Amino acid sequence: MKITRLNECQAVPVNMEGIKGVTKQVPIGKVDGAPHFSIRVFTLEPGGHTPHHSHESEHLNYVLEGSGEAMEGDTPHPIRQGDYLLVKPHEVHQYRNTGETPLVFMCMVPSAYE
Amino acid sequence: MKITRLNECQAVPVNMEGIKGVTKQVPIGKVDGAPHFSIRVFTLEPGGHTPHHSHESEHLNYVLEGSGEAMEGDTPHPIRQGDYLLVKPHEVHQYRNTGETPLVFMCMVPSAYE
Repeated sequence: MKITRLNECQAVPVNMEGIKGVTKQVPIGKVDGAPHFSIRVFTLEPGGHTPHHSHESEHLNYVLEGSGEAMEGDTPHPIRQGDYLLVKPHEVHQYRNTGETPLVFMCMVPSAYE
Repeated sequence: MKITRLNECQAVPVNMEGIKGVTKQVPIGKVDGAPHFSIRVFTLEPGGHTPHHSHESEHLNYVLEGSGEAMEGDTPHPIRQGDYLLVKPHEVHQYRNTGETPLVFMCMVPSAYE
């Protein structure tokens, strides 16, 4: 059994095409022995966003703090603390922080995409 | 894309050997098209608990509200809002609400164990 909290998890800036103001933590992942999927946590600064892209893996999300938008293709959906999201495989999507405070969300993926 | 909140998800009492005061919700699951794993949410009343058992599937948890104990075999570990947990396959475990308010936690499992 592993028990941890976000303030114990290293935060790493994410640098990739189309991304702005995003850091990543992995409270539960492969290194811990999680055999099938991992919990990643992304923090988006105000004005920050993830890439507007698609990929083979799904995302299962829970919004921990803040508010913003989830883009489903070109359609924005408001998201806020307490929302659960499913982004299906190959759906074009993007998370945007349109608020004044950090947008923090869990993003669970199969281990291969951790 | 699916976006939902706990108050939109049906809460079902869980009846099984060794369980007390537990309801279950599934904000993201197989019915939504999640292909590999699901988000279940359990609410334990004060004094409530899950079975003290083990099984083939892992649990990945996030504590949404309240406090209690996670049993690792016969060893209790305090848990509270904001904790992330990994219960590995075949580990004997139990969640107990030792607080005065509901203990609410996310419990992600492979789809077959939803």
